[in-house]
Amino acid sequence: MQFFSSDFKLGILGGGQLGKMMLYETRKWDIRTKVMDASPEAPCKIASNEFVLGDLMDFDAVYHFGKGVDVLTIEIENVNLDALEKLEHEGIRVYPPTKTLRTIQNKATQKLFYTDHGIPTAPFTRFAYTSEIEDSIHNGGLQLPFVWKSAQFGYDGQGVKVVRKLEDLQGLPNVECIAEKMIGFKNELAVIVARNTKGEVKTYPVVEMEFHPEANQVEYVICPARIDETVAQKAQEIALKVSEQMKHIGLLAVEMFQTQDDEILVNEVAPRPHNSGHYSIEASYTNQFEQHIRAILGLPLGKTDSKVAGIMVNLVGAEGHTGDVVYENMADILKMEGVTPHIYGKRETRPFRKMGHVTIVDEDMARARQVAQEVKETIKVTTNKSQ
Amino acid sequence: MQFFSSDFKLGILGGGQLGKMMLYETRKWDIRTKVMDASPEAPCKIASNEFVLGDLMDFDAVYHFGKGVDVLTIEIENVNLDALEKLEHEGIRVYPPTKTLRTIQNKATQKLFYTDHGIPTAPFTRFAYTSEIEDSIHNGGLQLPFVWKSAQFGYDGQGVKVVRKLEDLQGLPNVECIAEKMIGFKNELAVIVARNTKGEVKTYPVVEMEFHPEANQVEYVICPARIDETVAQKAQEIALKVSEQMKHIGLLAVEMFQTQDDEILVNEVAPRPHNSGHYSIEASYTNQFEQHIRAILGLPLGKTDSKVAGIMVNLVGAEGHTGDVVYENMADILKMEGVTPHIYGKRETRPFRKMGHVTIVDEDMARARQVAQEVKETIKVTTNKSQ
Repeated sequence: MQFFSSDFKLGILGGGQLGKMMLYETRKWDIRTKVMDASPEAPCKIASNEFVLGDLMDFDAVYHFGKGVDVLTIEIENVNLDALEKLEHEGIRVYPPTKTLRTIQNKATQKLFYTDHGIPTAPFTRFAYTSEIEDSIHNGGLQLPFVWKSAQFGYDGQGVKVVRKLEDLQGLPNVECIAEKMIGFKNELAVIVARNTKGEVKTYPVVEMEFHPEANQVEYVICPARIDETVAQKAQEIALKVSEQMKHIGLLAVEMFQTQDDEILVNEVAPRPHNSGHYSIEASYTNQFEQHIRAILGLPLGKTDSKVAGIMVNLVGAEGHTGDVVYENMADILKMEGVTPHIYGKRETRPFRKMGHVTIVDEDMARARQVAQEVKETIKVTTNKSQ
Repeated sequence: MQFFSSDFKLGILGGGQLGKMMLYETRKWDIRTKVMDASPEAPCKIASNEFVLGDLMDFDAVYHFGKGVDVLTIEIENVNLDALEKLEHEGIRVYPPTKTLRTIQNKATQKLFYTDHGIPTAPFTRFAYTSEIEDSIHNGGLQLPFVWKSAQFGYDGQGVKVVRKLEDLQGLPNVECIAEKMIGFKNELAVIVARNTKGEVKTYPVVEMEFHPEANQVEYVICPARIDETVAQKAQEIALKVSEQMKHIGLLAVEMFQTQDDEILVNEVAPRPHNSGHYSIEASYTNQFEQHIRAILGLPLGKTDSKVAGIMVNLVGAEGHTGDVVYENMADILKMEGVTPHIYGKRETRPFRKMGHVTIVDEDMARARQVAQEVKETIKVTTNKSQ
């Protein structure tokens, strides 16, 4: 196995919390890594074998970084694709492939991909600029309410807004965007599909996501989703279909809506380890980060079943607090059974900023759900120095 | 929680594979670490916030290292105890305490501790020098066969030899040692006890260890041990008694024999994460490394139950191979369900050298045991470059 030798080097674009969790796995297998990130305080600065400061959207930075590795992967999809394409042509193994990333990076292109490939998704209209939307409403081409999404850089809850009246459009950036029909849904679901370089494919169980109503950030991810088996099967099938047609390598996290009529609509995908799979570190036979590494290195995929029920709670900055972070009541949640906090290591908190996550595992889902609620109500991400 | 701040620093003496696995947990909680090891190629060189080259047995090196941290712990017990004692007097929190380490570091002292405290252990005789043993046999003071153990530096299967006839004494170092009665035992068992700075105590389930007959290294660690509940309870009680009397802080791995009459005799202890607890990374609610960190930082201890059955196989260098290591058939074991290899990252293999371990987890113990056997028969640690 060449990967377990000092000659081999895995490159990771992005040195944030996802990269950090990926590095637990490369360390476990003694795989040499080289990470690039624009921040000198990136969590991956330690634990990687080599750390390079660089702008992920800069052609030269990405190209030169990529030339020094054998396999190149990402922890964030906003990277310079022209550089990746050139690297691919020159024989660097880039996973996910640039083609997959091109489809995904632009949300309008991603939505068109679904409609072109017969994958169910919410109806939408594409606009070159947000300023064109008002006309379209006046002309009757578009009905209120809808969900406005910027086509690019929509990561982490930014770039999405529910537009209920014309005034809601004010303040939105005048960029390429889509207006998506609002879907009345029972649940938001997600399925992570792993696909290795040899074409082996495995899916993780369907998870259920509960969003914070205002911040548009996931509050709980629950595995397995508490839904009918037939709905779960349909979600798995659709996720597999997206996976097959996107021809990704590595992980593909497929986020979906379960409508009131139990239809499944694909919302969006991410071609990498994903927030909806963090529960897997504590709950699954193979966690998503190890699985991603297996997939891009062409190793056999691991078992995706869960050992126990898993719930993830995002740790986000409390409202009214900006500055040096303090985790209040940490010892109280550590007293609860089956609770594992993950602290991302960001120095400063601000309202709704993702500062970490907590996983709750238990043989019994109802008990896990109760503990998750207690965790949520107990721990606070603030700036209160008295703690 | 002061530990989750940039002002706090955890020091670890020893930067080997145990330290490396401890660092997964400090990274998970964003706890700043400083590690000292004598080898510039120590696995902890990356992933620690600061790495210091230094001899763990050198007073000055240990003392100066310790002055720069808030809490000091170890991943190996062969460290300079005078330096630790001075640090303790000067207010550094040293866990395990120096007193515990003094009792444990010398095997003769450790054995006397058991007899002094009414803890069952195999009968033994202490010798200032190995050369005194032969006289003792001739005088009838000692009967063959027995187990010779050097009093100091007995880590990792070295420093122990079964003496069946006088000639077996040849070649043994002429050092302080003990001659221990050979025990006819059904099983070798171990219990890990965690004790935090506030006196909270928890035990892990009893594990069963199968040793390689020649190399005296563990081949399989099986959790839970396949023994009667009454024997398991007795082992837990004795481990707790050792823990209480040793007044350790952090983990204490208590290795025991289950005799033919189902008596439990304490063999030896280690005041740190231990090979017999590696299964916990994949099988337990709280893995031993996180538990050690919780204990020494005075955090509440985590649940010690298992999610699933766990078996650990040590990956040791194959006989006849010395040089740059190659892991043969790695992809084949990754195909098996519930199999997680851990590669320690040592460049060179030699016969019986510990190069890593593999954990096998499954809901069903019998199936886990079968897969463990297959793993053992499949993977080879060699120098065969053709792989």
